[in-house]
Amino acid sequence: MTIINNTPRRLRLAMIGGGQGAFIGGVHRMAARLDDRFELVAGAFSSQAERNLATASELGIDEQRCYTDYAALLAGEAAREDGAQVVAIVTPNHLHYPAALASLEAGFHVVCEKPMTFSVEEAEQLAQAAEKSARHFVLMHNYAGYPLVQHARELIAEGVLGQLRHVQVEYIQEWLSEPPEADNRQAAWRLDPAQAGAAGCLGDIGVHAFQLAQFISGQRVSEVSAELVTAVPGRALDDNVQALLRFNGGARGMLWASQTAAGYENALTIRIIGEKASLQWAQEQPNELWLKPLNGPSQRLTRRDDWLSANIAQGVRVPGGHPEGYIEAFANLYQALADGYTSGEYPSWLPGIEDGVDGMRFIAAAITSHEAEGSWTPLHLSKASGASGGAP
Amino acid sequence: MTIINNTPRRLRLAMIGGGQGAFIGGVHRMAARLDDRFELVAGAFSSQAERNLATASELGIDEQRCYTDYAALLAGEAAREDGAQVVAIVTPNHLHYPAALASLEAGFHVVCEKPMTFSVEEAEQLAQAAEKSARHFVLMHNYAGYPLVQHARELIAEGVLGQLRHVQVEYIQEWLSEPPEADNRQAAWRLDPAQAGAAGCLGDIGVHAFQLAQFISGQRVSEVSAELVTAVPGRALDDNVQALLRFNGGARGMLWASQTAAGYENALTIRIIGEKASLQWAQEQPNELWLKPLNGPSQRLTRRDDWLSANIAQGVRVPGGHPEGYIEAFANLYQALADGYTSGEYPSWLPGIEDGVDGMRFIAAAITSHEAEGSWTPLHLSKASGASGGAP
Amino acid sequence: MTIINNTPRRLRLAMIGGGQGAFIGGVHRMAARLDDRFELVAGAFSSQAERNLATASELGIDEQRCYTDYAALLAGEAAREDGAQVVAIVTPNHLHYPAALASLEAGFHVVCEKPMTFSVEEAEQLAQAAEKSARHFVLMHNYAGYPLVQHARELIAEGVLGQLRHVQVEYIQEWLSEPPEADNRQAAWRLDPAQAGAAGCLGDIGVHAFQLAQFISGQRVSEVSAELVTAVPGRALDDNVQALLRFNGGARGMLWASQTAAGYENALTIRIIGEKASLQWAQEQPNELWLKPLNGPSQRLTRRDDWLSANIAQGVRVPGGHPEGYIEAFANLYQALADGYTSGEYPSWLPGIEDGVDGMRFIAAAITSHEAEGSWTPLHLSKASGASGGAP
Amino acid sequence: MTIINNTPRRLRLAMIGGGQGAFIGGVHRMAARLDDRFELVAGAFSSQAERNLATASELGIDEQRCYTDYAALLAGEAAREDGAQVVAIVTPNHLHYPAALASLEAGFHVVCEKPMTFSVEEAEQLAQAAEKSARHFVLMHNYAGYPLVQHARELIAEGVLGQLRHVQVEYIQEWLSEPPEADNRQAAWRLDPAQAGAAGCLGDIGVHAFQLAQFISGQRVSEVSAELVTAVPGRALDDNVQALLRFNGGARGMLWASQTAAGYENALTIRIIGEKASLQWAQEQPNELWLKPLNGPSQRLTRRDDWLSANIAQGVRVPGGHPEGYIEAFANLYQALADGYTSGEYPSWLPGIEDGVDGMRFIAAAITSHEAEGSWTPLHLSKASGASGGAP
Repeated sequence: MTIINNTPRRLRLAMIGGGQGAFIGGVHRMAARLDDRFELVAGAFSSQAERNLATASELGIDEQRCYTDYAALLAGEAAREDGAQVVAIVTPNHLHYPAALASLEAGFHVVCEKPMTFSVEEAEQLAQAAEKSARHFVLMHNYAGYPLVQHARELIAEGVLGQLRHVQVEYIQEWLSEPPEADNRQAAWRLDPAQAGAAGCLGDIGVHAFQLAQFISGQRVSEVSAELVTAVPGRALDDNVQALLRFNGGARGMLWASQTAAGYENALTIRIIGEKASLQWAQEQPNELWLKPLNGPSQRLTRRDDWLSANIAQGVRVPGGHPEGYIEAFANLYQALADGYTSGEYPSWLPGIEDGVDGMRFIAAAITSHEAEGSWTPLHLSKASGASGGAP
Repeated sequence: MTIINNTPRRLRLAMIGGGQGAFIGGVHRMAARLDDRFELVAGAFSSQAERNLATASELGIDEQRCYTDYAALLAGEAAREDGAQVVAIVTPNHLHYPAALASLEAGFHVVCEKPMTFSVEEAEQLAQAAEKSARHFVLMHNYAGYPLVQHARELIAEGVLGQLRHVQVEYIQEWLSEPPEADNRQAAWRLDPAQAGAAGCLGDIGVHAFQLAQFISGQRVSEVSAELVTAVPGRALDDNVQALLRFNGGARGMLWASQTAAGYENALTIRIIGEKASLQWAQEQPNELWLKPLNGPSQRLTRRDDWLSANIAQGVRVPGGHPEGYIEAFANLYQALADGYTSGEYPSWLPGIEDGVDGMRFIAAAITSHEAEGSWTPLHLSKASGASGGAP
Repeated sequence: MTIINNTPRRLRLAMIGGGQGAFIGGVHRMAARLDDRFELVAGAFSSQAERNLATASELGIDEQRCYTDYAALLAGEAAREDGAQVVAIVTPNHLHYPAALASLEAGFHVVCEKPMTFSVEEAEQLAQAAEKSARHFVLMHNYAGYPLVQHARELIAEGVLGQLRHVQVEYIQEWLSEPPEADNRQAAWRLDPAQAGAAGCLGDIGVHAFQLAQFISGQRVSEVSAELVTAVPGRALDDNVQALLRFNGGARGMLWASQTAAGYENALTIRIIGEKASLQWAQEQPNELWLKPLNGPSQRLTRRDDWLSANIAQGVRVPGGHPEGYIEAFANLYQALADGYTSGEYPSWLPGIEDGVDGMRFIAAAITSHEAEGSWTPLHLSKASGASGGAP
Repeated sequence: MTIINNTPRRLRLAMIGGGQGAFIGGVHRMAARLDDRFELVAGAFSSQAERNLATASELGIDEQRCYTDYAALLAGEAAREDGAQVVAIVTPNHLHYPAALASLEAGFHVVCEKPMTFSVEEAEQLAQAAEKSARHFVLMHNYAGYPLVQHARELIAEGVLGQLRHVQVEYIQEWLSEPPEADNRQAAWRLDPAQAGAAGCLGDIGVHAFQLAQFISGQRVSEVSAELVTAVPGRALDDNVQALLRFNGGARGMLWASQTAAGYENALTIRIIGEKASLQWAQEQPNELWLKPLNGPSQRLTRRDDWLSANIAQGVRVPGGHPEGYIEAFANLYQALADGYTSGEYPSWLPGIEDGVDGMRFIAAAITSHEAEGSWTPLHLSKASGASGGAP
């Protein structure tokens, strides 16, 4: 547990997106601030000039460093001696790729929202740019930041479950159950292919479920049989996804993502079935992890640093029984980036480019399978195997 | 609630199968006895003579009415003035069809275990025999006997959920996670195609999940995309099933059945997502039903007869907060049969031939889809639509 | 697990009380029937002649054996060669003592509802009568019949918890939250001192909580500090009880009983805190028992006969994951009585006279403490120590 | 919900206590930082010079503003133009009173840990000092910061529960179940009367439970019957407390606090029983609040700003289903202080001097009752009635 995790030297952070009325930008700011490792110094918060300036003012950002767009931000900050060191990209999807590419090329470390790009090709190009740049790229698969998610991954890597048999993952929400009102900014861009890409629910939260399944299991999805559903008529994109999975390590799996599931708020749940035991974790109760041995009593593991590895305990701030949540998990990705920036070593669990490439391959394969009446479709993984993000 | 649900005249019951060491036969006997509506008078409990007689003796059955096989039982009981009125068939699967067919033809009412037959053809022939016989056939989909399952079905029929969007059903167990020891009678026949049929887990519990999905939703599965898995090497039959579903009313769905899910005892769980609300029920906590309205607080409904319909409250024996379980739900099918025998009217929820025909079609379609690499496969339903078992 | 627990020879049972409209009489009948060890042969069901006869007719009892009162029943059945062997007393409280005393003196085994008597003196006299009679007396503290309650008791007796520190028990219900309507028979007699005795909620369910605390902990309450509350104005008896406890083995404890707790159905919950671990059990989820080791993951024990002792597994009818409930637990007391009748050995857990004497002492001491402004009041236990019901 | 809750002008914060190895100081710093409303500028972190400086260095505090003790800090900061505006006192208990008194007298706003003082007299003197000073005093009853705790308080104030009948509150932990090792700094001072005061568990967490009971119920405890227990032999202070309560509005209640409850991490749970409904909340699952209407389905309320009042929604940072926890609730007290500093209006829920005075009276009365064998002891409340902290 790291009660005192402050540091005299804060990294300087710039933000692209996250203007007033946005959701995730504010979360990034709280997460970056929580451990006192970042200071927000610049931003291109909105393409609407008025909103952009108002946001900067509210955030106490110098007007000089409130830029009209990402290109101006990158140029301006690169030119300053005290310029930003890290750029957070929190825009709608269509800007992820160009802004991330430009940020890397301009020499910035990057924190980027998912899905990483619009296509597999873009993802692969970004991967090349990242490799060339010697800068670190963090993909905001924030659920990997929960200590008990990381603990689940370690237990599996250590063989506690034995051979894995089945991965059951779902991520269901209710908030798009009804046609969105015109003024729901969050809904509007997510359902617009020009801003969201070819995938709706699949790209917004399905890809989180997919990443979590690979992340915890340590196996990669090799084939998918999927059906995309548009439950609310008139939408251009899917709002419900159901898929069967085959993993490269032999496990099978099922993935359900929905944004039209009445009564469910943010229900991301995963179960990993092994020959010797199973694991179960639910994001809405993130401070407990169920270890269910074959023919034995189920055990409720909590977020106690006395049984977490030192690496994971780094992301625990208060003792077991003192609940931590979404912001803390989110902050763990920022903390890991700051630690890595200083030490040069990034923890293997920190989601990055590889997760993004896999995610785009999953999206592409799911769409292909859907169009081919559910036939099993390979993901054409570039690397033979191994856990996403490397071995723990 | 029916605190006093005894009756002066008990129906006379004969049992085929259920010898010492069997599991489900004992449950049938407790269920039949609970409400004092049946008296066990005869049996052909086992093909092994010694076990057959020992069982009869233990049960206090007259040796004269302990028969060597079902044919002898049907002949013997039909010849008696005080002969059995109802036959319960609780054997391994391969005897369901011949014993049920013979029982109906011999003029007995039948309670039969699932899966009903080995094939769709047999199921359809049994359906014809049942129709011709004017006897009632109950298929032991016992989970339909839980009052809150029936209540869920009524809420949906009343439109509380609006248009249904998604049905998520799973039935997972751990007990076949390891190769069975030679002396595990329960495991042995379930994994032997000669006794179990072409489906392992799919036929043993997958068909329960399928029935429950149709039963509660009031929609029928029209197409399936499935994969059958044999997780434990060397088995002749599947022990894990994953499937995507399309329903005739427009809903989609997912079905997972497994007998190799370490840490799960008898976890049958269903969620029905509608445009206005969702429902959630889990067999291991059967005394609560979750009604989850869109954008409102989830509600925990309990087994209280003051908000159940009179028809359902008939199957409630003790007040809310006094838990009822598996045996009570099981007994509700026997109770409904006894009531129907007397009144001539059987409740619409009582599972029967139609559930059996649908179940066999589901099994056949799932196997076909599996062999065709997961392609969507129709169930060729004989009747256009409608809830399994009729509208409530 | 005892799937087949029938026996050729059923004990003959007579019932005092339990006429139409009563609650607990019907439960006794189902419980006695479940394992096929009892046959109801006679009854004095109601002091109202018409109701008495109607009940007998509904239950298929010979009119000859439907008696006008308990004295007639005892005389009539004692005179028959095929007379009842066991008498179940399920009347309002005021008849428990005289009917039980007369039954024992007439040579019958007795199953009696709680609270056992109106006073400590009556309880002690009944104890003497029982000892003299060589008949067995079962007090219907039915919650002791749950297998996991018995398992908790065994774990503590085996020292798994180490020295006990605290016992937290509560039994709360909502059903008397409002003034009862005139026609609520269940409420009416429970709030009438002439029928219920000096204690309302305290005697009706507080005594269950008290018995459970002693039963599981294996310690006896030596002193109590209590306050009786009448939450609904105008009642003659308490409907809410709060008490502090001191146990003879050094543990402390708290007891809360309420019948005016809106939103709670039948919430009997107990936690036992020890130096090495704690246990937690709740009647509304009776198929799980929480073992909570110090500084370790909590474990969810289920009702699996493979880790229950043989003695306890006798009361398990279906495998883990197949929920059992209130009726099954209730039936375990009848089953144990039938087994004991045959073998002459009654299990140590079976609640009896001693529980009744202790219960009446608890009621008396709680009232005394209440009247003395909460001062600690001793229970004047006649026997020095030891678990209620003897050591497991 | 306040996604963007930053402000250009941060309040300057100084900290007394919270050196390396301390627990709660780090939490205060994270909480103060989360919403970007405070900047830590000075500290007297430890009486050990080396630890003091090391802490300052780690936190990036100017060595000039790292003071040897609170007196030096107050003097030094008062003398600076850019001196601290708010002082956080996070020391062991014995320094709360002198440091808070001096801080107020020196013109600082104060955030102080509980218990507020060592005695009722000190508490009353501090209350006078606060009134005289025109500075705001926040007592860190952090559990009042949870949005759903505030919502529970509002529901009761609005009459949703009707007349209150019973308050059941408990706060149990396991961490002092065994004799503390010599090097456990957290345990050592809490069990040392010189640093902790006359109350151990009672003062450390019992007072939290007490405050929460008054806070949510809106009633004040008028009398207590208590027993203090030292479960681990050799301790100078209590480690387990059990008490009965009488409230000035007629409700009764029970309070259990323990730091020797094996298997429980930080289990603060409260239930409020009313004539029309009950409420239930548990700190370890803080994102749900149970509303349990009489004779109706229990409802699970979540932390959704669309049904919270605007005042409460101010303390919600992420949508329902995105769990918030201990740090966020803690931060809400800092946020409210910052808002009040600017606007001059402090929300009625913000715990302060009055909670501290009541808390000390409760501690004193509980000790008195304990010494008088559990007799009911009045709290001698100075103000006639009313919710702690004022009406919502």
